[in-house]
Amino acid sequence: MDSSYTGRRVLVTGGIGFIGSNLAIRLVELGADVLLVDSMLPAYGADLSNIEPVRERVRVNYSDIRDSHSLAYLVQDEDVIFSLAGQVSHSESMADPMTDLEINCAAQLSLLECCRRHNSKARIVFASTRQLYGRPKSLPVTEDHPLDPVDVNGINNLAAEMYYSLYHQVYGIPTVSLRLTNTFGPRMDLRSPNKGFAGVFIRQALAGQTIRVFGDGNQRRDFNHVDDVVEALLLAGAKDDLIGRVFNLGHPQPHSLNEFVACLERLTGCTHEHVPFPADAEMIDIGDYYGDFDRFSKAAGWNPAIGLEQGLEDTIAWFRQRNIG
Amino acid sequence: MDSSYTGRRVLVTGGIGFIGSNLAIRLVELGADVLLVDSMLPAYGADLSNIEPVRERVRVNYSDIRDSHSLAYLVQDEDVIFSLAGQVSHSESMADPMTDLEINCAAQLSLLECCRRHNSKARIVFASTRQLYGRPKSLPVTEDHPLDPVDVNGINNLAAEMYYSLYHQVYGIPTVSLRLTNTFGPRMDLRSPNKGFAGVFIRQALAGQTIRVFGDGNQRRDFNHVDDVVEALLLAGAKDDLIGRVFNLGHPQPHSLNEFVACLERLTGCTHEHVPFPADAEMIDIGDYYGDFDRFSKAAGWNPAIGLEQGLEDTIAWFRQRNIG
Repeated sequence: MDSSYTGRRVLVTGGIGFIGSNLAIRLVELGADVLLVDSMLPAYGADLSNIEPVRERVRVNYSDIRDSHSLAYLVQDEDVIFSLAGQVSHSESMADPMTDLEINCAAQLSLLECCRRHNSKARIVFASTRQLYGRPKSLPVTEDHPLDPVDVNGINNLAAEMYYSLYHQVYGIPTVSLRLTNTFGPRMDLRSPNKGFAGVFIRQALAGQTIRVFGDGNQRRDFNHVDDVVEALLLAGAKDDLIGRVFNLGHPQPHSLNEFVACLERLTGCTHEHVPFPADAEMIDIGDYYGDFDRFSKAAGWNPAIGLEQGLEDTIAWFRQRNIG
Repeated sequence: MDSSYTGRRVLVTGGIGFIGSNLAIRLVELGADVLLVDSMLPAYGADLSNIEPVRERVRVNYSDIRDSHSLAYLVQDEDVIFSLAGQVSHSESMADPMTDLEINCAAQLSLLECCRRHNSKARIVFASTRQLYGRPKSLPVTEDHPLDPVDVNGINNLAAEMYYSLYHQVYGIPTVSLRLTNTFGPRMDLRSPNKGFAGVFIRQALAGQTIRVFGDGNQRRDFNHVDDVVEALLLAGAKDDLIGRVFNLGHPQPHSLNEFVACLERLTGCTHEHVPFPADAEMIDIGDYYGDFDRFSKAAGWNPAIGLEQGLEDTIAWFRQRNIG
């Protein structure tokens, strides 16, 4: 990995958001020539302070991935493209499904068309999601588990991932998709109330509020620290034998929401309470989920290095240093 | 069935195209109050002569399903909506994927949003496609076969079908999806060169041309006469225990392309030749396909009544009477 990105031209869509900015910082360390593309939509997690450590060492281009004209120009000379920009809220995808479709489905197809026409050699890494599986029929969930999403966001991401695979099969464009699970860590968006419980719980903990857990909190999930996710993305952008394939991320140690909350309580002294599931949230909740990431572990040599306790400690410390919360 | 549609308000998108117009004629016979919505895009099969037998007994509204404003108004008072409008060419979906997405994916989600907001009681029947399965991994293909489309059209239809199922699960909108296979018969669009081999072969046979078969012609497919498909759609719009479900259509007797051609040769005296598969067509060809329609047969009592030979004889006669070909 150390030299894979040296001098390489790398574009990151959503590059000023949570995962994108963490990736950008690491890419700069590795000597890449980094171009960040971001629409700066406030609700989607973009925050210029995210890239403060590398602000003078990256190029920033403000544009929305729905703008196919600028995208066609921007992809031209890039060696690697990380497609991270997206609408990630499940509940928001139900409230405004057409916007979710434009960003998570149409803009992804548009990016592929731009590459097909203007730069068919660029490696593209697509940040897909475990939401494609819907409610697990068996655990841990492998890549062969049926795809049965329970919300518009999951359907649109499924279509997008299929476009990426298809454009490899038909046109030979070197694409790789990683199905991300719950990602947390520094620079995560704590402001949005509807981007998953992890950010909400961490915000409540930092603010000294009582964490409100929907239901009994026994649902188990797998959590990846963003540094491990960045490492996975970098591998996906560098290793040739991953091309054309789809991989789960995941963590060897799933945790219940209650364990997640207990960890936050130890770190911050906050408390929690259980409240009934709101009807709209329950409708699209997937229950227990944890993924089998053996395929990616074997193919790329990736294994998450950071556990939940250590990861949350790091996350809380990062936000506290910045007086956020 | 006989009285299910009497006095019912029925909207058919794509109602002036191949399947839509055949459905419209039958709906008028059954006493329905029929509204046909069509954009009249020439390449998509709309032809006013298709509805000549019922022209004075249906309402016609010219609008495109991508126009969500008119759609919101049009759906308001309907009891049953048949969503048939679509871009059906696989090769065209590769040449112009964004248009395919707008029609087959975005406009379907938009129709569902219109119904959710303005008429959440209307039964909606979605004409889905066997293209969702891609290249069969086992035959006959059941509804549980993995979904692995090999072209943009298949991916977009998959997303659309999932929206229909989701809107039933989450909002209780009564949707039913039928996965159609090769449909042929009177009013099929013979002008388009890229809407599947059946129309192309029939046009070549009617014109006395040599039928050009790509490859060895041994691929087997199942063929439904449009009258059988119309019957299936009517059942899907009438029977309550089908709601929220997805069904294959199909035929008990699959035929090879060579058998299809031999049948046309007997009926018209035409000849054929084998030519190599063009690269772009071969890339998205799915090989042998025939579906298992047992689920729909059991749930709806549907069985196709028309075989290939009888169906082609009827089709050839229909076009010859109109001096088409």
